[in-house]
Amino acid sequence: MRSKKLDARGETSFVVALDDGDEAVESLLAFARAHDVTAGRFTGLGAFSSVVLGFFDFQKKDYVRTVLDEQVEVATLVGDFAVMGDEVKLHPHIVVSKRDGRAYGGHLLEGRVHPTLEVLVTVAPDHLRRRTDPETGLPLLAI
Amino acid sequence: MRSKKLDARGETSFVVALDDGDEAVESLLAFARAHDVTAGRFTGLGAFSSVVLGFFDFQKKDYVRTVLDEQVEVATLVGDFAVMGDEVKLHPHIVVSKRDGRAYGGHLLEGRVHPTLEVLVTVAPDHLRRRTDPETGLPLLAI
Amino acid sequence: MRSKKLDARGETSFVVALDDGDEAVESLLAFARAHDVTAGRFTGLGAFSSVVLGFFDFQKKDYVRTVLDEQVEVATLVGDFAVMGDEVKLHPHIVVSKRDGRAYGGHLLEGRVHPTLEVLVTVAPDHLRRRTDPETGLPLLAI
Repeated sequence: MRSKKLDARGETSFVVALDDGDEAVESLLAFARAHDVTAGRFTGLGAFSSVVLGFFDFQKKDYVRTVLDEQVEVATLVGDFAVMGDEVKLHPHIVVSKRDGRAYGGHLLEGRVHPTLEVLVTVAPDHLRRRTDPETGLPLLAI
Repeated sequence: MRSKKLDARGETSFVVALDDGDEAVESLLAFARAHDVTAGRFTGLGAFSSVVLGFFDFQKKDYVRTVLDEQVEVATLVGDFAVMGDEVKLHPHIVVSKRDGRAYGGHLLEGRVHPTLEVLVTVAPDHLRRRTDPETGLPLLAI
Repeated sequence: MRSKKLDARGETSFVVALDDGDEAVESLLAFARAHDVTAGRFTGLGAFSSVVLGFFDFQKKDYVRTVLDEQVEVATLVGDFAVMGDEVKLHPHIVVSKRDGRAYGGHLLEGRVHPTLEVLVTVAPDHLRRRTDPETGLPLLAI
């Protein structure tokens, strides 16, 4: 276990509202680029017209994809922003629920917003960095 | 995608503990009214003796209800506060789990607390506003 | 419903990265002890190689355990820190998802990290206290 203290006094909060048809991963990255985010965290809620969930397979060193091509509620979205090289990276995990309430989750690979996704973002004036883990190939936090 | 910066320096944090028998939606609204909340966000956890989950049906323009009339763990609760006209509105999404661990989620329409719900609230001195979306009838964020 | 205002100006944020093989509950408690945490909240995401979920049974006054002895994504982790007597206590709830995306949740009794768990912690310079509820035997918030 490793930990890093962030500059809480310098933190900034944003409400980010994604609109009908927006793709969630690209939109959150666009927000981060526009505001030069180098460290942050968020929670969110809303609904998607389709979603692709990822489960990391350590043999394949890639995500197994579960595609839900139907309207789902975004029951919770949680994640963080960090930088890798010169680029901001998003790490988003999600739980969605179907019409009958059953819940599915995983890494958010892709989500089409319908009609809204409300994301509460806290940005810190620090640099969180990721580095490729040689064993898994995953971009893990380097703190 | 639209975003609004909140006044993080003016933010206030609360721990709100709901007690046995409290209804979660009404209690959180009562908290917000008592503290004149006009913008906020929260996460929570605890347990319910019953819960009603909503899935928005765009044909009916209303929520399909899934009633779980049994004890469930509140695995996560996430949401925000905003105002619509003169009234504070709550947007809460939830994941609950049954005795065997299976998870259900959606919009929280109603939840009976048993024995506790612990909600971590951050209030900002801003005004987040909602406006009725003409197409869906839903109160979307107007930022 | 009871609530307590925390000293938001004095809040501190941490990123806590748990590593391969770490047990999540013990690691988060170790973090809290190392930083003298007496009030805090967190959200998290990552993956486990095994997890034990709890559902509180009010007849037994104990947790029913669901053991998932397989790799799962941690779709969301949410919880708080408070003190009971001289000891910091952790209240963690979780949603995990299996290879096919199906989600399970509950009280996090035990989770073996593989390869990472990223936890965003906010610490307040207050004292949140727990007290044993005589009826259920559970350590509820005393505010």
